[in-house]
Amino acid sequence: MTLKFGVIGTGAIGREHINRITNTLSGGKIVAVTDVNNEAVKSVIDEFQLDAAIFPDDHSVIKDPNVDAVLVTSWGPAHEHSVMAAIEAGKYVFCEKPLAATAEGCQRIVQAEMKQGKRLVQVGFMRRYDSGYVELKRVLDSHDIGEPLMIRCVHRNTSSNENYTSDMAVSDTLIHEIDVLHWLVNDEYQSVQVFFPKKTKHALGHLIDPQIFILETKAGIVIQAEVFVNCNYGYDIQCEVIGEDGVAHLPEVSSVVTRKEGKRSTEILVDWKLRFQDAYDKELQDFMDSIRKTGKPNGPSSWDGYIAAITSDACLKAQQTGEKELIQSVEKPVFYQNTPQLSFKQT
Amino acid sequence: MTLKFGVIGTGAIGREHINRITNTLSGGKIVAVTDVNNEAVKSVIDEFQLDAAIFPDDHSVIKDPNVDAVLVTSWGPAHEHSVMAAIEAGKYVFCEKPLAATAEGCQRIVQAEMKQGKRLVQVGFMRRYDSGYVELKRVLDSHDIGEPLMIRCVHRNTSSNENYTSDMAVSDTLIHEIDVLHWLVNDEYQSVQVFFPKKTKHALGHLIDPQIFILETKAGIVIQAEVFVNCNYGYDIQCEVIGEDGVAHLPEVSSVVTRKEGKRSTEILVDWKLRFQDAYDKELQDFMDSIRKTGKPNGPSSWDGYIAAITSDACLKAQQTGEKELIQSVEKPVFYQNTPQLSFKQT
Amino acid sequence: MTLKFGVIGTGAIGREHINRITNTLSGGKIVAVTDVNNEAVKSVIDEFQLDAAIFPDDHSVIKDPNVDAVLVTSWGPAHEHSVMAAIEAGKYVFCEKPLAATAEGCQRIVQAEMKQGKRLVQVGFMRRYDSGYVELKRVLDSHDIGEPLMIRCVHRNTSSNENYTSDMAVSDTLIHEIDVLHWLVNDEYQSVQVFFPKKTKHALGHLIDPQIFILETKAGIVIQAEVFVNCNYGYDIQCEVIGEDGVAHLPEVSSVVTRKEGKRSTEILVDWKLRFQDAYDKELQDFMDSIRKTGKPNGPSSWDGYIAAITSDACLKAQQTGEKELIQSVEKPVFYQNTPQLSFKQT
Amino acid sequence: MTLKFGVIGTGAIGREHINRITNTLSGGKIVAVTDVNNEAVKSVIDEFQLDAAIFPDDHSVIKDPNVDAVLVTSWGPAHEHSVMAAIEAGKYVFCEKPLAATAEGCQRIVQAEMKQGKRLVQVGFMRRYDSGYVELKRVLDSHDIGEPLMIRCVHRNTSSNENYTSDMAVSDTLIHEIDVLHWLVNDEYQSVQVFFPKKTKHALGHLIDPQIFILETKAGIVIQAEVFVNCNYGYDIQCEVIGEDGVAHLPEVSSVVTRKEGKRSTEILVDWKLRFQDAYDKELQDFMDSIRKTGKPNGPSSWDGYIAAITSDACLKAQQTGEKELIQSVEKPVFYQNTPQLSFKQT
Ligand SMILES: [Mg+2]
Ligand SMILES: [Mg+2]
Ligand SMILES: [Mg+2]
Ligand SMILES: [Mg+2]
Repeated sequence: MTLKFGVIGTGAIGREHINRITNTLSGGKIVAVTDVNNEAVKSVIDEFQLDAAIFPDDHSVIKDPNVDAVLVTSWGPAHEHSVMAAIEAGKYVFCEKPLAATAEGCQRIVQAEMKQGKRLVQVGFMRRYDSGYVELKRVLDSHDIGEPLMIRCVHRNTSSNENYTSDMAVSDTLIHEIDVLHWLVNDEYQSVQVFFPKKTKHALGHLIDPQIFILETKAGIVIQAEVFVNCNYGYDIQCEVIGEDGVAHLPEVSSVVTRKEGKRSTEILVDWKLRFQDAYDKELQDFMDSIRKTGKPNGPSSWDGYIAAITSDACLKAQQTGEKELIQSVEKPVFYQNTPQLSFKQT
Repeated sequence: MTLKFGVIGTGAIGREHINRITNTLSGGKIVAVTDVNNEAVKSVIDEFQLDAAIFPDDHSVIKDPNVDAVLVTSWGPAHEHSVMAAIEAGKYVFCEKPLAATAEGCQRIVQAEMKQGKRLVQVGFMRRYDSGYVELKRVLDSHDIGEPLMIRCVHRNTSSNENYTSDMAVSDTLIHEIDVLHWLVNDEYQSVQVFFPKKTKHALGHLIDPQIFILETKAGIVIQAEVFVNCNYGYDIQCEVIGEDGVAHLPEVSSVVTRKEGKRSTEILVDWKLRFQDAYDKELQDFMDSIRKTGKPNGPSSWDGYIAAITSDACLKAQQTGEKELIQSVEKPVFYQNTPQLSFKQT
Repeated sequence: MTLKFGVIGTGAIGREHINRITNTLSGGKIVAVTDVNNEAVKSVIDEFQLDAAIFPDDHSVIKDPNVDAVLVTSWGPAHEHSVMAAIEAGKYVFCEKPLAATAEGCQRIVQAEMKQGKRLVQVGFMRRYDSGYVELKRVLDSHDIGEPLMIRCVHRNTSSNENYTSDMAVSDTLIHEIDVLHWLVNDEYQSVQVFFPKKTKHALGHLIDPQIFILETKAGIVIQAEVFVNCNYGYDIQCEVIGEDGVAHLPEVSSVVTRKEGKRSTEILVDWKLRFQDAYDKELQDFMDSIRKTGKPNGPSSWDGYIAAITSDACLKAQQTGEKELIQSVEKPVFYQNTPQLSFKQT
Repeated sequence: MTLKFGVIGTGAIGREHINRITNTLSGGKIVAVTDVNNEAVKSVIDEFQLDAAIFPDDHSVIKDPNVDAVLVTSWGPAHEHSVMAAIEAGKYVFCEKPLAATAEGCQRIVQAEMKQGKRLVQVGFMRRYDSGYVELKRVLDSHDIGEPLMIRCVHRNTSSNENYTSDMAVSDTLIHEIDVLHWLVNDEYQSVQVFFPKKTKHALGHLIDPQIFILETKAGIVIQAEVFVNCNYGYDIQCEVIGEDGVAHLPEVSSVVTRKEGKRSTEILVDWKLRFQDAYDKELQDFMDSIRKTGKPNGPSSWDGYIAAITSDACLKAQQTGEKELIQSVEKPVFYQNTPQLSFKQT
């Protein structure tokens, strides 16, 4: 009953997933590994004391009959090739974002998966597994606040490094809102416009920061999404859904409250890795549990990866034009429609 | 040392101001009253046991030598006429919003007041006296959060009545944000664009509700301002200023916290009158105190009334066009520049 | 309709009351003043530009026919004498705590007031006028949380000065909880026991600090009351009532929330004077309004001053013995029973 | 490297631990099971598809050479016998509370474990693994609020069933505070006194509820601990530590905030099982990880079980006498002193 993983890419995120499958989660095992850097592969096998075979490339990992599922954690441009090969081999795939480097690449994966006839792919959009978003979705689905009309959200990072460019506000940052918000309200995106506030002195010269994206959905929901990656005070994710009958807020991260020196205060996370650590655990546990129980993964699909890609493309265009840009309208195939609800246990 | 008021208009807001000057505040007295409705005047004199003369029209009130200051609480279209007459008579004026029915009318008042040579007029923008906004401004002025880059604010009412029309989202509702926000950040408005989310089922047929206004200031601050007058859950005013070094939030209204039936909860005001009741008291007390101490009013000026009018006009146009509309750029005269800071005592 | 005050004692609290009657509140006027320090009297008349007569002693103030109400703000040991004289003269009295230096003194005042036949005296227990306590009482009286079973409360000061002694934890600090709590739950005290936690290093050598008082009421409510006057972080008043159906908390003081340097924080007051400033205003305004409207004061009565005194005495004894001490049981006379509810307007 | 468990007792808590070891945690496996009820054993093997041997009694489980660690989840009176046998066999033991039915039984286990020469036993006090308490301890250990002087805590349950008796307020409820609080402040208990507030109408006739325990530690910390098992509104655990320099509060459970129908509210858990679900996972994961990494368990020890027992005994006596009762003073053996700090990863 153990799901045997072949890992393609042993960089930072690869090692983390290997660690959690090996030492934290239940039901998985790393049996095969490859990386362009041979030393990296050896060190990971040593560090986690893996009983795993080393392979020269992604194809040989995928073809290994011992491998049930492929973990794609290589660099982005290589994802499409590995995912396509895994689908052709009929193997399960957990692929970190992006699913492919272009919307067309995502579309090819969607078509390959549909042709092959069974859901095999899960994309690493972990926010859907965060207990806060899960609870927020439960409130929305209960109709407790009625039909959603607006969303106000915020994605703030303490600071960005010198490699972070203005387009990455979309491809690396807003991408998480893009995925989680349409899932939250069961809706699709229609248009986007970008506003550029006064730039913070804490951003490097080449970078536009902050940025505000106004997205509209097919149902008419207006989303105000702030991306601010040099906010200077912490990693802060906020989301508020305004409905016809009330408002629901993503919970703040819970923390000790202190009263000291004239202030009542609570810590805000500074390290973004801590914010969604539980969600990373849960997305992979659910991947394993769903396959064991239903024969297929249950999380964000290839289609979700494709939607994220076409929405990102429009956001990037809107950054250039300053105008309201339409987001390509696509019809969700029946194949992807009856996605079962998240089944994992919430605390 | 008592400031003697002549009141023009004894409708709802007029009676409230008469009540607070008579029974709550210190240093003022109602000595003259007029209203188009004679019965209303008599009933107000009876109710508050005023020792005040009844006059047939605004001019006779203004000319009464016993009157030091004129309280203009008639209906909006009549304001300009009374304010102009008071300025010409060299009397102090406290005028409820709008200062005049048009931007041109406001401009005429500004010019008359400047020509006359001394600040006489205060406009009833009470939010600047709300302890929450005052504290928020204190935080901003201390540079504790650095230069402001963005503002996110919300103006929600439980429900609107049948006379409330889509343009009143600007002239009656957003107008308070328009006045208070540029004061808060010492900046002027440059452009505005409107987004119309899906309409709530709780709004009447003729009304567009909610509406989102994106305002940009000359310094580059982007303001996201939501107006939602049928939010169905309460009267809720929120304001968050995002600076280069941190964020500051207008305090929530303080209220008893209860734990009951599986919920920890706090009451939200439903009646909007309660939200700024203290601010209404303070604006009039400050009007009286400033005149006693400095010989002129210290609160929102004719110029502020004019700025509110030209900004409203652009917002109304933006509602029609759906495009980004420029807000008329005007240079603040020296006459209005050295407005002393609010001097009233804060708790 | 103006209530004319004679002031006995122009120290700190006397000056504050003179200021608020003169410059903040409506319906009162200072017409007579006395103090053992002649310079103090003159300076207060100058500072507030009072049109008031100077008298040599409390008796002459009280006898002045121009005086409607006496404000007793002398030092504690002198209170009883002035209050008794005012009652005998049939004049209204607003007396700062303590009503008298001993429980017997309070009892004499109660008897004199009853004999004289009409409520004349209000004691300066201002917490009953704090909007938080008023709202908390409203929740309790609504039976929203059912019958109260327990109260947990906290009275913390940043630091105490060298004149503050261990018994003052009762007579100056806990005294406010003693008055407000039995009013809050309509109950009387039965016993008290004191616990002395480890002493804080911030307290001076002679002082026991913190102290915990466990009070039990006749109805069986157990009150856990912490007094901690060198808590080192701020002035912090907390009160939580646990009922059969839920819990209600006194609201925290509302303040701007900031997000900065990895913390979400709110200011806690450090200066205790700011905490109940509005309540001080309201208690005197209500004193004046009630006399005008009903012919007698409506706030904390002589009886309440007497109850505070006998409860304090038991708390002081419990400090000495470490045992559970009974609180003298007294029957509330009909004269004091039908105290009308607080009538002042709440925001 | 897999830790092989033998389970003694397959009632509710036994099944839950079997489930988490099998389906949630990493590094453990159920290989042997026994229960007085044969059907229960079979059903648990079926339900969780265990590859485990069925044994007739605790001794045979313990002796099975395949078993590395024993999970004692039988009923309380049977614990001591199984734990003693496991220690004699040199096997690891995870024992649910109570460690033994009496303080003497706990003492015998402590002596057996010391004689045997190595820490083998962990007691199921899960709160030490709750992320809130862990963070609170981190704050205390950092000396951020200085030396602790007082603790105010609350243990409330929505309702108790008919089998719950007044002594269980100590043995089943307060027992968790008893364990976690002395760990939190690195201190030992000295005395306890009980106060009985007015009984709630929601408690059955035989039950005293609520109860307040005032505990004093050797260092002089005074703990005010409320037990209220029919509070009627939810499962609510609160803990506030007041130090010389400030105060730290256990975080409230984080939850979606809604604004609806005039209230801003957050859900309070009603089902107590959800509150410490993560802590239950972490205590067992840490048991396995610590044994793998250090050769011995790292959590609450036999000594902690013993301390809980002698403290409970004094609390029970105090319930009877109403007097302050001393808690037996015992010296912690060196064997138990150098307990390594919690090593598990916190999010
Ligand atoms: Mg991921
Ligand atoms: Mg106004
Ligand atoms: Mg007072
Ligand atoms: Mg346990």
